[in-house]
Amino acid sequence: MADFFNVISPPEAIDLMSKNLSVVGHEVINTEDSFGRILSVQIFSQEESPSFDRSSMDGYSVKASDTYGASDALPAYLELAGEVPMGSAPELTLSPGEAAIAYTGGMLASNADAVVMVEHTKISPSGLLEVYRPVAAGENVIVAGEDFRKGDPVVAEGHLIKHAELGALMSLGTTTVNVYRRPNIAVISSGDELVEPGTQLAGGKIRDVNLYSIGALVENLGASATSFPRIPDEYDKLFEVANKAAQISDMVIFTAGSSVSSRDLTAKVINDMGNPGVLVHGLSVKPGKPTILGMSDGKPIIGLPGNPVSAITIFRAVVDPLIRLISGAKETPLDKVIEAVVDTDLPSSSGRTDYVRVRLRYDQGTVRAVPVHGKSNLISTLLSSDGYVEIDADSSGIYQGTTIEINLD
Amino acid sequence: MADFFNVISPPEAIDLMSKNLSVVGHEVINTEDSFGRILSVQIFSQEESPSFDRSSMDGYSVKASDTYGASDALPAYLELAGEVPMGSAPELTLSPGEAAIAYTGGMLASNADAVVMVEHTKISPSGLLEVYRPVAAGENVIVAGEDFRKGDPVVAEGHLIKHAELGALMSLGTTTVNVYRRPNIAVISSGDELVEPGTQLAGGKIRDVNLYSIGALVENLGASATSFPRIPDEYDKLFEVANKAAQISDMVIFTAGSSVSSRDLTAKVINDMGNPGVLVHGLSVKPGKPTILGMSDGKPIIGLPGNPVSAITIFRAVVDPLIRLISGAKETPLDKVIEAVVDTDLPSSSGRTDYVRVRLRYDQGTVRAVPVHGKSNLISTLLSSDGYVEIDADSSGIYQGTTIEINLD
Repeated sequence: MADFFNVISPPEAIDLMSKNLSVVGHEVINTEDSFGRILSVQIFSQEESPSFDRSSMDGYSVKASDTYGASDALPAYLELAGEVPMGSAPELTLSPGEAAIAYTGGMLASNADAVVMVEHTKISPSGLLEVYRPVAAGENVIVAGEDFRKGDPVVAEGHLIKHAELGALMSLGTTTVNVYRRPNIAVISSGDELVEPGTQLAGGKIRDVNLYSIGALVENLGASATSFPRIPDEYDKLFEVANKAAQISDMVIFTAGSSVSSRDLTAKVINDMGNPGVLVHGLSVKPGKPTILGMSDGKPIIGLPGNPVSAITIFRAVVDPLIRLISGAKETPLDKVIEAVVDTDLPSSSGRTDYVRVRLRYDQGTVRAVPVHGKSNLISTLLSSDGYVEIDADSSGIYQGTTIEINLD
Repeated sequence: MADFFNVISPPEAIDLMSKNLSVVGHEVINTEDSFGRILSVQIFSQEESPSFDRSSMDGYSVKASDTYGASDALPAYLELAGEVPMGSAPELTLSPGEAAIAYTGGMLASNADAVVMVEHTKISPSGLLEVYRPVAAGENVIVAGEDFRKGDPVVAEGHLIKHAELGALMSLGTTTVNVYRRPNIAVISSGDELVEPGTQLAGGKIRDVNLYSIGALVENLGASATSFPRIPDEYDKLFEVANKAAQISDMVIFTAGSSVSSRDLTAKVINDMGNPGVLVHGLSVKPGKPTILGMSDGKPIIGLPGNPVSAITIFRAVVDPLIRLISGAKETPLDKVIEAVVDTDLPSSSGRTDYVRVRLRYDQGTVRAVPVHGKSNLISTLLSSDGYVEIDADSSGIYQGTTIEINLD
């Protein structure tokens, strides 16, 4: 089968897979537990917020017309009718020439239409309120419905719930929300060479790394990862585990060796799991060429390269957008890309997408990207860098001084 | 007491608090569970990695000298001595003129010093390996210790463990790590006006928002939040809860009303909790002026304003750096600040730090920041913006077209 498939670019691969993907189902949860989840329905306000005209200052609620013309030289004199305590409805109604103590966030007295700041007043020896500045109607007041009117859209479908969204929903009394459920991603590591990380190494063995780093990347996206550790390079065992993994998950990620035999085994398993099987066998990228993408009965199946750096690179560049897609997320996160000026020329082979690791340094207000040298398959290059530059297949490199986008780790 | 304290700027406040803070203790956990934690000791490699000379290609391990001068016209002919399977030590030693099958990630035969890529070879009809390109010693080989040498620093103290660090530690067999424990942050909401979010509102009541949004911000920083919901505005009750909160936590955050009486109550409680009590009473900022910062017997105590937007703003600008500090984090996260060009003039009062909410839009490769209009204390302004600009106290504003830093939500 593998021979029929061409090596394609990451955007083509994402596009091809996207056509076949569908968003996971949804569930109702408490808003209190919804931080980091994605809304599956648009939320509208069911009421006016604030629900009452609220003072935005400490001072006195008044009828604005009673303060017109007030100045230091000629203050307005008002009768103090009482106070409206925090969290209480007003029990007093202002008659002309009256004022009532108002607190920041509290209600105004009935009939009042503005608040005079306490700084602009004084209590006279006779107990009258002296007002030194006029206020306009509505001044120092947040009127009912000013934040949200009944029926206003509050948070859109596909939007990530962060602290502000959580606060807005709570303020409107929306204590349960309909969200997409977290995708469950199965991560299978395989290869006769793999041993548990706690093991002392002997001839040719390496410790399993990808199960953990890929699992962490999955969970960091808000999905949950289920691990199937260190399956030997035997068709029957791998096929059995793969089917079990597919049954309980929304996506299966294999991370196997990068040798031809290992890739062929993974491809054969993916083809036998269900239709259509392997869609992409090899990407025109460096690092990460030995990547396999397929679908089995509606579920995306990914074969990542075995090299830990390649696996992480392809996860970030290709798998991450696919997981976001099935998560129901409609927005690209803003905080994963920053712009920087390249410090040196970055040569690149045209016809292939290059992922070049860079370290960032701050130089008089400019962010500069310094390429991290060393073979692209060494974990140490990941640790000494802050992110990577994607150099498109149609580019033969980037000149020093060019401003480029850095994908942050 | 409050009268003795001046209104100061956020950097001064952070500086003053920082002098009094200490980092939380540490604990040993499994590396597998360490994603998002902060290392409390520098990690050094205990061994060479890779532990053996590893082939980086599918092909044949050879003695490089046996391939010198090989070309399409005049291939080198080598005897095929066997293979070194993945995950196995070589059982064969090359004699001069011999080669052994090698897999990507596998070991070389003993005596071999290079790998010929399979693409540059052919098996002759007589079963000999024809090699069409010469290889230099070390070619297509990652030598033992090339990623990490024994004793190399791997991850620094104070560094956040992300997917790459997790992978590196696992690859080196470091299955437990010493990390700072997660700070426990107590969040107390108080005010007679507060009701549970599920409650129907009546006269002057508002739903508790800050307990949830501030709790989410705390947890998003990798700390854990313990909630003390909706304590009434009574000194005895608030004092009792505050002491209980301080006992079980590393920092106490009050979020109370913004009125003078509410602030005075919070300040009194903070002063009575322990020495030195209130250090900062009011910040020269907008929004967020009614902020209180103090220390009680070595623990930072924060009084956030009651307005949800002010509370979130001050948390991000002032409390976030303090939590990072007690967390043991030594690095500033890169992914929370991006640069953008201001779309319109942003006037600001000098003598006060202004936090102006902005929405980002992408215009032909340039990120542009558009200020979000509306009163700074409306939750809806948070939802329609992507982050905020901090305009320093000594600035009277920012001109249209200036490139500025945006603090992302």
